[in-house]
Amino acid sequence: MKVLHSIAEIRQEVKSLRKQRSLDNHEATVGLVPTMGFLHEGHASLMRKAREISDIVVISIFVNPIQFGPNEDFERYPRDEQRDLALAEKEGVDIVFLPTVDVMYPSPTKTHVSVAELTDTLCGASRPGHFDGVSTVVTKLFNIVKPDHAFFGAKDAQQVAVIRQMVDDLNMDIEIVPCPIIREEDGLALSSRNVYLSEEERTQALVLSRSLRLAREEISSNPQMTAGQVRALLRREIGTSSIAVIDYAEILSFPQLEVLAEDTVLQQLNGEVIMALAVKFGPTRLIDNVIMETKGVSLHV
Amino acid sequence: MKVLHSIAEIRQEVKSLRKQRSLDNHEATVGLVPTMGFLHEGHASLMRKAREISDIVVISIFVNPIQFGPNEDFERYPRDEQRDLALAEKEGVDIVFLPTVDVMYPSPTKTHVSVAELTDTLCGASRPGHFDGVSTVVTKLFNIVKPDHAFFGAKDAQQVAVIRQMVDDLNMDIEIVPCPIIREEDGLALSSRNVYLSEEERTQALVLSRSLRLAREEISSNPQMTAGQVRALLRREIGTSSIAVIDYAEILSFPQLEVLAEDTVLQQLNGEVIMALAVKFGPTRLIDNVIMETKGVSLHV
Repeated sequence: MKVLHSIAEIRQEVKSLRKQRSLDNHEATVGLVPTMGFLHEGHASLMRKAREISDIVVISIFVNPIQFGPNEDFERYPRDEQRDLALAEKEGVDIVFLPTVDVMYPSPTKTHVSVAELTDTLCGASRPGHFDGVSTVVTKLFNIVKPDHAFFGAKDAQQVAVIRQMVDDLNMDIEIVPCPIIREEDGLALSSRNVYLSEEERTQALVLSRSLRLAREEISSNPQMTAGQVRALLRREIGTSSIAVIDYAEILSFPQLEVLAEDTVLQQLNGEVIMALAVKFGPTRLIDNVIMETKGVSLHV
Repeated sequence: MKVLHSIAEIRQEVKSLRKQRSLDNHEATVGLVPTMGFLHEGHASLMRKAREISDIVVISIFVNPIQFGPNEDFERYPRDEQRDLALAEKEGVDIVFLPTVDVMYPSPTKTHVSVAELTDTLCGASRPGHFDGVSTVVTKLFNIVKPDHAFFGAKDAQQVAVIRQMVDDLNMDIEIVPCPIIREEDGLALSSRNVYLSEEERTQALVLSRSLRLAREEISSNPQMTAGQVRALLRREIGTSSIAVIDYAEILSFPQLEVLAEDTVLQQLNGEVIMALAVKFGPTRLIDNVIMETKGVSLHV
């Protein structure tokens, strides 16, 4: 495994590995797992997926300043380079791209990539500029590494929707591979930010996965449930935690991310919906979601 | 020369030509000349430059709706496919990419690439959204064709500055090659829009190149000239045309495109300046510019 810091090095190494691993009738493919480091089992699952479908696996570790708001946790975002490299090595990663901020932004970027509409809701509404920062840095990483596949965790479901839209709109020749949320045994979705939680907050945070599970069961057993009822159920359940402060508890179409009207009967929809939560426990904001198929029922008129 | 309409075809053909023309120790390079068609000698000079430094020459012909404002000339922009193809063939182009609007925008794009600051002045100020449309479509074309070099005419000097900034900021692995303005014998800069001009307007439009030439001569012979004096000179000279309506007549640093303060003494600047004009003759808006080196003079204090 090579750990490279400059753009010139990474381009050179990807090119040379592509050549090495290509056969006459098969051009070696490159899979990219973009991360902000402090890697956990969720990231490991992305690397394993990449190892499975790409000939060359590249991960990037970069805490991207331009996707953090002025009052967010850029400075204190957890970092542990040595542990990250050991985990990447163990997962059979070929190249780790570990740039400094100066390498990625030698001067402040004047150029931004923005995806409209999909970013109006959820984290896009709560974190102005966040997704512009994400789509801009992901575009940069794509242009540096030139992957054939890129792997993203479904925990950041809006991010997946935004990146997919960007790739489609801008004709990027890259397949986006979303991978399922990885959870602790008790249901807590893995996140680098879980390290911020006190023991008490960690216990209370279980309300996220519990409320989503409950809502999913309710929807499955009650075909007439409306979007408004789902929202009420989520809020009621999260309200059982004394310290939880809801940023949003939403149900939307997926991947369009259109907010469903209160009286929408879910089982009359065709396609997928997402139930998405952002909730603060003390100073720490956690997100979680469930994406589920809704089956169109025939309407008797 | 192949004329291709779909993205899949163009990708396939570029790939296959790259393979064909690569040698063991040299990977064939691709040069892209993005155009809006109605090709003239200016475009031909870009194709010749591309032929000179790239192994494979691709031109795109696409009148991009999203770079036109609602009251601009998208609908009546001149088109002549047969003549364009004959000219491209004559210049030794390998592939012409000729997509429809539906191919480029199967649904309205939600994603835009924007370059800040450089687009605040000149055509960016006069044509809101224009450069977002340009940088977005150029990004798409780059992702479709994957060129090593891309060729742009210096007549659209702000466009060149914007595209270069975008390529740098987004780490696109593409060399931008600007090519000099091509002029008629009497000085008129070539433009597809010249076809709009009546005989009288065509004569009056010579004031553009004449005023730029005059200003350049004045700056060269008068080391103490200020930016304000240059602007006055340009406006006075353009004013000799009875029908010219000035949109802008500016002098700025290049390629930063920072407007120079009125009392800036040009010869005390290091680097390049651009004198840029946008002037309407009847309904037709024409642009022209001159970029020149200013030499720092030693200050006697």
